[in-house]
Amino acid sequence: MDQFFEEALTQAKKSFQEGGIPIGSVLVHNGQIIGKGHNRRIQRDSVILHGEMDALESAGRQEAAIYKQSVIYTTLSPCPMCTGAILLYGIPKVVIGENKTFLGSEALLKQHGVEVIVLNNQECIELMRDFIQKNPNEWNEDIGEEVL
Amino acid sequence: MDQFFEEALTQAKKSFQEGGIPIGSVLVHNGQIIGKGHNRRIQRDSVILHGEMDALESAGRQEAAIYKQSVIYTTLSPCPMCTGAILLYGIPKVVIGENKTFLGSEALLKQHGVEVIVLNNQECIELMRDFIQKNPNEWNEDIGEEVL
Repeated sequence: MDQFFEEALTQAKKSFQEGGIPIGSVLVHNGQIIGKGHNRRIQRDSVILHGEMDALESAGRQEAAIYKQSVIYTTLSPCPMCTGAILLYGIPKVVIGENKTFLGSEALLKQHGVEVIVLNNQECIELMRDFIQKNPNEWNEDIGEEVL
Repeated sequence: MDQFFEEALTQAKKSFQEGGIPIGSVLVHNGQIIGKGHNRRIQRDSVILHGEMDALESAGRQEAAIYKQSVIYTTLSPCPMCTGAILLYGIPKVVIGENKTFLGSEALLKQHGVEVIVLNNQECIELMRDFIQKNPNEWNEDIGEEVL
């Protein structure tokens, strides 16, 4: 397994262990991780710290040129907000753990010329399935859907 | 002037006084402000706390139905990230102070059925002009563009 994807998955598992939504992400520039994070809705009552947003925030303020030579890894297909952040900063490549649980705005990324790779990794799928089975309301909240 | 837009403008001015990027936002539900904030790139070295994101975060975790009956006010046309957050949560209406300084993803909002109202308020335009004249690099950084 790719070491960067592995770190994104480690971040997802860390969130799961914390009782949070198991989605992790890393930002990689020139073969080095410059940011990593995971969904913190439950841990910090945050409505904006999805995994990708947390990874971007943890990387700190970077020059535009850095983002434009970076790759973002995320364990789940990026939602509209995270997609927008990727487009804002011009990150040219996104590696996605899976898009079976949730299909984000991959079409919009591609429309803007972003390279999108979907692994459909079984571990990512199972982590999400496990979380959603136990916490359907928190998951729906995270994607802006009605709680059942 | 609309009281909600006025509060968004007050938030923008507050950011300006703090030495930050002068963009403010409020989230309004049923005639009540439930979140407000401003750009915090400079104040908190944040790459995700644009005005709209800060307003959403300050509102805390809300039920999906709340967002779907809310209006977001922002002093500047929303960038792709903030647009994505508006779409994620299904906020049906956006009131924008101005789009002369920066034209965000208004077309994408409209494509998704979001009502978009642009005021082109002179005070918003002047606040941004003043900030950008003195801090062109910080502004470029905020929209993912190369520093000159």
